[in-house]
Amino acid sequence: VKRVAIVGVGLIGASFALALRKAGFDGEIIGVSSPRSIEAGLAAGAIARGASLEEAAESADLIYLAQPIDRILNTLPRLGRIAPPDCLITDAGSTKREIIAAAAEHVRRAAFVGGHPMAGKESRGAESADADLFRNRPYVLATDLVPKVHAETHLPAIREWLQRIGAVVYEMSAAEHDRTVALTSHLPQLLSTALAATLAKQQTSAVSRVFGPGLMDMTRLALSAPEVWMSVLESNRDAVLDAIGNYQETLSNLRENLERGELNDVFGTASRFAQSLRK
Amino acid sequence: VKRVAIVGVGLIGASFALALRKAGFDGEIIGVSSPRSIEAGLAAGAIARGASLEEAAESADLIYLAQPIDRILNTLPRLGRIAPPDCLITDAGSTKREIIAAAAEHVRRAAFVGGHPMAGKESRGAESADADLFRNRPYVLATDLVPKVHAETHLPAIREWLQRIGAVVYEMSAAEHDRTVALTSHLPQLLSTALAATLAKQQTSAVSRVFGPGLMDMTRLALSAPEVWMSVLESNRDAVLDAIGNYQETLSNLRENLERGELNDVFGTASRFAQSLRK
Repeated sequence: VKRVAIVGVGLIGASFALALRKAGFDGEIIGVSSPRSIEAGLAAGAIARGASLEEAAESADLIYLAQPIDRILNTLPRLGRIAPPDCLITDAGSTKREIIAAAAEHVRRAAFVGGHPMAGKESRGAESADADLFRNRPYVLATDLVPKVHAETHLPAIREWLQRIGAVVYEMSAAEHDRTVALTSHLPQLLSTALAATLAKQQTSAVSRVFGPGLMDMTRLALSAPEVWMSVLESNRDAVLDAIGNYQETLSNLRENLERGELNDVFGTASRFAQSLRK
Repeated sequence: VKRVAIVGVGLIGASFALALRKAGFDGEIIGVSSPRSIEAGLAAGAIARGASLEEAAESADLIYLAQPIDRILNTLPRLGRIAPPDCLITDAGSTKREIIAAAAEHVRRAAFVGGHPMAGKESRGAESADADLFRNRPYVLATDLVPKVHAETHLPAIREWLQRIGAVVYEMSAAEHDRTVALTSHLPQLLSTALAATLAKQQTSAVSRVFGPGLMDMTRLALSAPEVWMSVLESNRDAVLDAIGNYQETLSNLRENLERGELNDVFGTASRFAQSLRK
């Protein structure tokens, strides 16, 4: 990899650039983004200059799409036509099936490998970029390569760079990825939102005064901005509906167990699982 | 208040003792607890000595019950018979209706004011005691005084000490307290437990590897030990079932909105409520 283009110079894109640099990448890193984001990316030292998507596709051999999902879905048809055969395109979108389907349809000569870094922070933009954002965090690479054989020759390079920036790389199909994040990311988001919405409906002001730190944990995700989530949830609707259905069943069972005074089993199972996440 | 007895020298009891001392209380503080807890309370500098419940009832003018709910319910009949008229009994149990009903039945000459500090930490025991545990945290005093007129004369003293240790005192009926904590404490606990239990049931190991910090927030409460929660939930079953019912309705609506792609409203409501908790 000699020249990298970051498309979408926000928190993830700029952090990826800083991480590459810290891991020893010495080629040029260019940014494709709004003028405001290019400016922030330059100020953060993440990119050397701004460029158009066309220029990036011509000159970069790694193109990193760090836009929101709906923007990635718009970028792929444009990029797919112009990116040359020696170019590897990868993305950081939170769901993988739709993006990979779009890549399979539109990426003509270049190769595409879908990715998803499970990293982030509350503040957004290149201003918050951090070379260690991906360190010790899961980073999924989808095994649905586009096109298969051509992308396979590119795969080791991206995998190696991800390992050099400290990410813990997992490889799985886009379908397994989307099912998994429906359970571990989208479901928790919706449960937190539903909890805050349930409390907001109460007539008494006591609910916003009389609470402990547990409620703060459980409503932190509810602070998320809707616009970030809409395209994530839309692009994973079936898996998210399944995950909600699973949860509704567990909650109904738990409710029945509470009526019968038999909660020990579910508390034990839950506690062991929560501990296993922390090992 | 000249002499205080802490019944149940664990995290809450020992922290209350240290907080009183830090706030300038210069009378004797004695502990009623297991030999192991008395030892830990002595080592933490929280209590001057151990005593039997009988001795504590004879000599203390403030008795602070910091046991689990089921233990408080056992202690009240014994204590109620022997505590003299100039003695104020208060408690730190997580639900209030059952405890106050037991106090109304059993506390004969002394006065009883129910309380609930919304404070705690993950580690337990007097070893973890902290004089600032209650600082800036809500502390509910139940307005169902036992007996009403007699307890009213004692109330200002306990309210003043709570303010001196930095707690934010709220006064409300036991019923309103129990409804409120069903929503702000017991419901979040059960939602976290149900989330961890839902994920534990999945056949794939990916759910315990591919996740971000949000899942850690949402499963922290699931780490709780069942034995702490059983008597809390049993003593508040009707209010907790109502809270779960409210939540199930919100979650069903959210699911329908997701199917229709109309999530903006619930995200907006939830986000504003979550922000209001942080002001």
